[in-house]
Order: sequence, then C-alpha cells, then structure tokens
Amino acid sequence: MAKVKKQPRPKAQTPKGFCDYFGAEVAERTEMLTKIAGVYHRYGFDALETSAVETVEALGKFLPDVDRPNEGVFAWEEDNDWLALRYDLTAPLARVAAQYRNDLPSPYRRYAMGPVWRNEKPGPGRFRQFYQCDADTVGASSVAADAEICAMLSDTLEVVGIPRGDYVVRVNNRKVLNGVMEVAGVLDPSDPDRFASERGIVLRAIDKLDRLGVDGVRALLGEGRKDDSGDFTKGAGLSAEQAEIVMGFMDAKRDTGTATVARLRELVTGSKVGGDGVAELETIAELLDAGGYSSDRIEIDPSVVRGLGYYTGPVFEAELTFEVTDEKGRPRNFGSVSGGGRYDDLVKRFTGQEVPATGVSIGVDRLLAALRAKGRLDTVAAGPVVVTVMDRARMADYQAMVAELRNNGIRAEVYLGNPKNFGNQLKYADKRNSPAAVIAGGDEFDAGKVQIKDLILGAEIAKNATLEEWKDRPSQYEVPRDQMVAKLREILDSQS
Amino acid sequence: MAKVKKQPRPKAQTPKGFCDYFGAEVAERTEMLTKIAGVYHRYGFDALETSAVETVEALGKFLPDVDRPNEGVFAWEEDNDWLALRYDLTAPLARVAAQYRNDLPSPYRRYAMGPVWRNEKPGPGRFRQFYQCDADTVGASSVAADAEICAMLSDTLEVVGIPRGDYVVRVNNRKVLNGVMEVAGVLDPSDPDRFASERGIVLRAIDKLDRLGVDGVRALLGEGRKDDSGDFTKGAGLSAEQAEIVMGFMDAKRDTGTATVARLRELVTGSKVGGDGVAELETIAELLDAGGYSSDRIEIDPSVVRGLGYYTGPVFEAELTFEVTDEKGRPRNFGSVSGGGRYDDLVKRFTGQEVPATGVSIGVDRLLAALRAKGRLDTVAAGPVVVTVMDRARMADYQAMVAELRNNGIRAEVYLGNPKNFGNQLKYADKRNSPAAVIAGGDEFDAGKVQIKDLILGAEIAKNATLEEWKDRPSQYEVPRDQMVAKLREILDSQS
Repeated sequence: MAKVKKQPRPKAQTPKGFCDYFGAEVAERTEMLTKIAGVYHRYGFDALETSAVETVEALGKFLPDVDRPNEGVFAWEEDNDWLALRYDLTAPLARVAAQYRNDLPSPYRRYAMGPVWRNEKPGPGRFRQFYQCDADTVGASSVAADAEICAMLSDTLEVVGIPRGDYVVRVNNRKVLNGVMEVAGVLDPSDPDRFASERGIVLRAIDKLDRLGVDGVRALLGEGRKDDSGDFTKGAGLSAEQAEIVMGFMDAKRDTGTATVARLRELVTGSKVGGDGVAELETIAELLDAGGYSSDRIEIDPSVVRGLGYYTGPVFEAELTFEVTDEKGRPRNFGSVSGGGRYDDLVKRFTGQEVPATGVSIGVDRLLAALRAKGRLDTVAAGPVVVTVMDRARMADYQAMVAELRNNGIRAEVYLGNPKNFGNQLKYADKRNSPAAVIAGGDEFDAGKVQIKDLILGAEIAKNATLEEWKDRPSQYEVPRDQMVAKLREILDSQS
Repeated sequence: MAKVKKQPRPKAQTPKGFCDYFGAEVAERTEMLTKIAGVYHRYGFDALETSAVETVEALGKFLPDVDRPNEGVFAWEEDNDWLALRYDLTAPLARVAAQYRNDLPSPYRRYAMGPVWRNEKPGPGRFRQFYQCDADTVGASSVAADAEICAMLSDTLEVVGIPRGDYVVRVNNRKVLNGVMEVAGVLDPSDPDRFASERGIVLRAIDKLDRLGVDGVRALLGEGRKDDSGDFTKGAGLSAEQAEIVMGFMDAKRDTGTATVARLRELVTGSKVGGDGVAELETIAELLDAGGYSSDRIEIDPSVVRGLGYYTGPVFEAELTFEVTDEKGRPRNFGSVSGGGRYDDLVKRFTGQEVPATGVSIGVDRLLAALRAKGRLDTVAAGPVVVTVMDRARMADYQAMVAELRNNGIRAEVYLGNPKNFGNQLKYADKRNSPAAVIAGGDEFDAGKVQIKDLILGAEIAKNATLEEWKDRPSQYEVPRDQMVAKLREILDSQS
C-alpha cells in the first residue's frame, strides 16, 4: 500500500435533513410497526419489501408538489441507467403489481413498511428520510375495498394507542368533486383534458383550506393570492359564481352522513360522475355501518381532497382531534397522520391495462410524535443491571456473573471501561439508566457473597428521605452469591 | 396542465442486482431480526438507527476489496456535497461515536440492523442491497469486550435456530499474525509503513485459503499466481523461508486451545506484538470458559484473518459446520455467516483521538438461507379465511362477518374481486393458501346459517381418499350463523 497523503479530518455529521435515532426511539418505532403489521395481517394483507432503489423510469413523477419541480427525488446515473431512492411505497407497488401480474393473487392485498426519501428542503420536524407504513389492495374495483381500508385504518389507530374519540377517519370522493367541477363549468366530460390546469389549482387550493382559510381559498379559486411575504400565487381564474359552487362543496358537511350525502346529491345535480361519486359514498357508509364502524370513527367530509393528483375515486384521511402545544407553546390540533385513496391509473403506466387500486399510508413518525406529545408511549427505557469491576484480576468471575444473569433473562452487562475509578462506574450505571448494580471485591469473594445496590430506590431516597428514613430503608443489600439472581429479580419486580 | 407527449411505457423491473421480498420471506426476516435484537438487548446493547444516506466524506473508504477500486458505493452530488448510501453499519457508527461523543455513555454498546448497499457487480445470490445486523462496543480497550461479543454471537446463533454443534465461532488475533510477519521479516516495528503492501497481499492470500488451497496461497505469498482463466495475480514476493513461516501460522491449530496457544507462542518468539497477541487470545479463552462458553462453541483458530484492512486485534467469525447442497447438487459446507473484530482506528479519523472499538456483523440473509436449506424455518405462511361472495347485494352482510372474524383474532378477508364466477373465488382462496372458506347465499341467510369449507382437509381428501372415505369425512359443514367463529376456530386448531 502506498503512503496516503495527509487529508483534513472528515466532519462527523449527518447530511443535512437526515438524523439518527437512539435506543428507546428505535424500540418505540419497532413496536409500533409490529402492532400495525399485526392489524394489516389480520385483515389478510401480505408483507412486501421492495428495495430502496428503483429506476427513475419505474418511479415516474407522482410527487404531491408538482408546482415545485425542484423538490423531488435523490437520483444518480449508473451504467447508463438513472436510479433513485423511492419517495413513497406506492410507486414501487405499482411496479411490483405490473412485474409479477401473472403470479400474484388478484385482488392482491399487500402491506409495506420502511423508509422513503425526499429531496426536499429540510425544516423543523421535516426530514429527508422518514418512515411510511402502507396497505393497498390492487385489482379490486369495488368500493368495498375502500371501505375495508377505512375500517382497517380505524382499527390500527386504536391498536397503536389512539383511543376512540381522539381521532376521526374522514372520507370523500374525487368523483363528487369532479361532479361539482362539471356543474361549475371547469370540467367538460366530452374533453377531459380541457381545464386540467384550472382543476389542479382548485384541488390544491381546497387542500390548503386548513392553512389559508376560506378567504385564501376563494382568492386562489379566482385571480390569485398574495401571501404575507408579498409573493403572488396565480389562481384558477374562476368567476365569482363558479367559485361559489366549489366553496359550497367544501361547506357541504352536515350533522349526519345521510344529510351530507343528500346535500352533495343536490350540488352535483346534472353530473353523471358526480352522481356516481355520491352513490359510492353512500355504499361505503353502509358497508362501514354493517361492520360496526359508525360516525364516531369514520365520517363523510367533503373538505377532504388530498393533494395527490393521481386519486380517481374515494379519498380518506385520519386526523387526530386532540390538542397539543406547538413549539411556541400555542395549542393546536395535531392534524393528519394518515391518508390515502383510490388510484386506478398507476399500474396502467406499465401495462396499458387499467388496474383498479386503493390504499392508505400511515406517517409512523408523526404518529409517534403524537403519542409522545400525549405522554402515551409506555416503552420504559430500562437499562441493564451493571456488574461493576472492583478487582480487575477477577474479570472472569464478573463475566461468569453476567452470563448467569443473562441466562436467567435479566438484561445485564459487566463494566468494560477502565475500572480504576469506582465512582466512574456508578456514573456510567446512572447514564445507562441501570436499575441495579452488582458489587463484589476481595472480601465478598472470600465470603461467597455479593453486594446489590438498588439504584432506583437509592436515587429516590437520596432525593426525598430524611437521615432517619435513609437508615431505615437501605438501598444496598448483601446476599450470598447463589442468591444474586433471586435478589435482583425481587428488586426489578419492585421497580416495575 | 399542458398535454403530455406520448412516451413509451416504462419497464416494470427492479434495477439490476436488487430484488423484492414477499409475504413469508419478509415475516421470516422480521422474526429473525426480533430474536437477534432480543439477545443483543439482553447483553446491554442499545438500538441505534442511522439514516441510509451519509456524506462520502464521513463514510471513508473501508470496503474490503481495496484491490478492486471499481467496486464501491452508490454516490451522487447534492448541493456541492457528495452523498452516498452506507455500505455497512460500522462506518456510520464511527461517525455517531465521534458526533455524540460527549453525550453517549462510555463504553457505548450499540446494535443496529438494516439494509446496506454495495455498488458491486451482481451475481447469483449476490445482491446490491442486503441486511446486516451489527453489535459493537466503542470505548472499551479490554479484550473482555471481544470475549463478550463472541459469547453473544454464540448465543445469537442458538436463539435463531442453529443448535450447538452445527456452528463454531473461531477466534484469532491480528497481533499474532503481525508477530509472525515480524518474525518472517515483512514487518519492521521501527517503521510500520514499510512492507505494508506486501502485508496486504499476505492478508488477502490467507483469507482465501478455503478457496485457493495451500498451494494457491503459497503462490500468492511468493511470486504470484495464475488462475484457471490465465489471469496472473502478483504475489507478495516472499522467499520460500519467509513463506514457510507464514504457512506455519495458518497450520498452527492444535486439538486444544492450550496447545494452539503454545504453538503460536513458539511461532512469534522474539516479537513483542506477537507475544501480546498470544496473551490476549489466552485471556479471551479464559473469560469465555468462565462464562460457560467452551471449545464446542468457540475455539482459537489461526487460519481466521478476515479480509478487512482495518482490524487491529482479535478477529472472529462464525461458521456453520453442516453440509448443504449447492445449486449443482454437490454437498458443501455452508461456511461463514458472521464476522468481526477489533478496530481501534475508525473513530480516530474524525477526532484524532484513539477510541478502541470491537464488534460483529451478522449476515442475516445468509443465515436465513442456511435455515431454509436445512428446513428449519417454521414460519407457516397461513393465508386468511376467505369469506366468499355469493350475492353481491349482500356485501354489507359479508363485511359484518369478516369484521366479526377479525375482532375475534382470526385472519380473514372478504373476496373483493368480481364475484360472478364462484370457481374463481375458490381458486383465489387456494392461491392465498387459505385454511377455510365461508359460503353464504340466499338460502343460508334465510335459514340463519353459513357453510364453512375446510380447504386443507378438502385438498387432502381429494388427493388420497376413496369415495367411501370422502363420504365419511366431509370437509364442508353447515352451522348456525352465531357459531361461525367457534366452528372456524375448531378447524384452524385441527390444522395447526
């Protein structure tokens, strides 16, 4: 090997917008994924794990923010092929459904969980790698498939720890919106491509209702909107009358599903696609009722449109309805943690044949953040029992102790740093959140005993107790060596 | 939106060297990772999940095959930074250990599991994305840390289903090899960089003993070796005497650890580093013995060197000792499924300070392949109960049935394809590997009953039974609607 030139030291940093997860964070996510997979599996969905890398050709361009072309994927050229990291789990599913179409059962129910990557500007809480957790049914045109996805989403939220009442799954149908567009004169059934750009603007405007309010949306439906910074966004150019029809749609929610459906039917009078959409919503509501999923969990809400351009029928999203405080201490609704809908054209890209599909994606990291904000994550990050090293020459004895503890199912480790300073060993145990320490030096070995220190009790006593109580409630015990496991188990049980 | 030009259809294909995993394959891997994490956790190791993407600068160049520079990482330029997919889990750990050095406990025990990516030429069973499952201890210079890793590796193999006797963890020490090199005259302690290139060739030659045999290695130690295709690989240029010393090292294994250690001590006589290495091996053996890990599980084997250049002390690998048949039907040893060792310089790249570290990496996909080859994966890919659709108008009733089954913990789904052809529904259930189908049409609903078909029993009878037996052992039952769950449970229990 030739001598290597001295180079400046590399920086120890994650790339911008990426982050590391430690200990309990990883365990919490794994536990949540396991619970979600359990529900998906019970519903008959099969696991699928595709690779992180796809050809750019297969991925296509379906990112939500089509108006911001600089936001996209991580891609690179490799042997004349452009490869990219997947930006969601739906595009790889469409590829799989086409590639294995002769081997997969039809309908094909599959779930997938894993990281996806977005080449977007990072921001607070906005990362360039994050987890998604999807379930989709490919090859079922019946809205029974959409209803099933909504029921499963509801079950999933409850299983991961969001109680009924703290969430709502809201359902709408793009066909109803298209019916409204037709009535408003921005959709011509005989020339579907006409007004496509205007409809795109309408769609994205409605999707921003939460953020922009009624006036902001109305501006975007008309000439356009100037935001607080003075930037102008061009509008759809609808007349006041046209805009009124669209606004009426967003406002169509009534107290009961039946009343909402009746109002929607009025709004789309004269549009075939609109009428079809309303009928589908009715069927979905009926199927969900039959399964025991009534409006305390799933409701029809015309304000849900979902930003993605590729949806063609029912769309749904799950919103957490409880308040959290934001980084500035202000209360706000937690908002959406999941969304999906029917997309009947994604597989067609590959095969030329229409393949109906519907599915949902859960933002696992957002869901974890919600549970954390509510203090509902009960994964206790219990550290290991630390076997301290009093006498370096007896390392084999300490190893034997720690092996015995592990073989008895107790999480344990021997201190592997420099044992010279005993205080450092207890500080280490503290940093590890250890429940107890085992201490044995020459005297203990000679007497066939060990000392066991209850570190949780010890910390409590040190914080609260008077000197008297301290004496009465010792946190350190001397036990015969062969009772080490039993005593530790007693201490661990008393702590849990 | 402007009209889009017609483009040729994208190809529905994974990129070369990548693949998809379905159903049971995913479940089996998840289960194995959970079991491995359980052992790592019990040993006091904490989870760490870093992002898939790192800066090229932070990753450095530590791929094993330094003699093949065209094989490497997937990298791309992004805002003047070069980013890359991680090629292992050790390089990101070194970056984390440096980045968070003031916050992490020391020693820091961490485990990590996830995919890594190699930009290598794909081949049979050789993929460009595969799973690794690592555990490392950073900040412990004591070989007690190495011994612990070996014990944990042994425990892990048994927990995932490799019984004692079917594997061996083999331990060696790079320092002993360096001692041998010193004795052979290709290491000069006063000028460590001298002969570095020769030592690299010696290292890689020894690592190929399995594949090249004694003569092949001897050729590479000397002038070089011409392979079957006529390609010539330059050798280390050692004289016959020098080569003999190195060959003696590889041949130093004796029947007992004690005898092997004695033989190694002879071989490194006169070399300080060699003597240190032998003493470390002795300590490791002693510590493992104390923990109950004797030579039926872990043994000292001088032929283990591991290809990676960065190891500085103990090295280890786990080999499965049973035979499998290869793709051509020939029996062969399954071989290595895991390897690791001590690398004391990786963190220093970032901080300038020496940080001792040691760890192991398990090749999860290889381990799964081994268990599959031995028929030891017991994950049964049981499909869902399929509720068939006899009457499309009663979809709500079928949904209610399937909801009841799921609420009772039974994996179930309603048939969501076109229900017109009932035969297709049973074919679908067959493809799904369904244990049972529920059938109900107008007559059954009127009578408050359902038909339940035991599909496993049905298939068995169809295969083996005479007409008489067929009549005696019906595989289809009519039960009252409110006994559907109980009857299905009975059938599922009888199948398991």
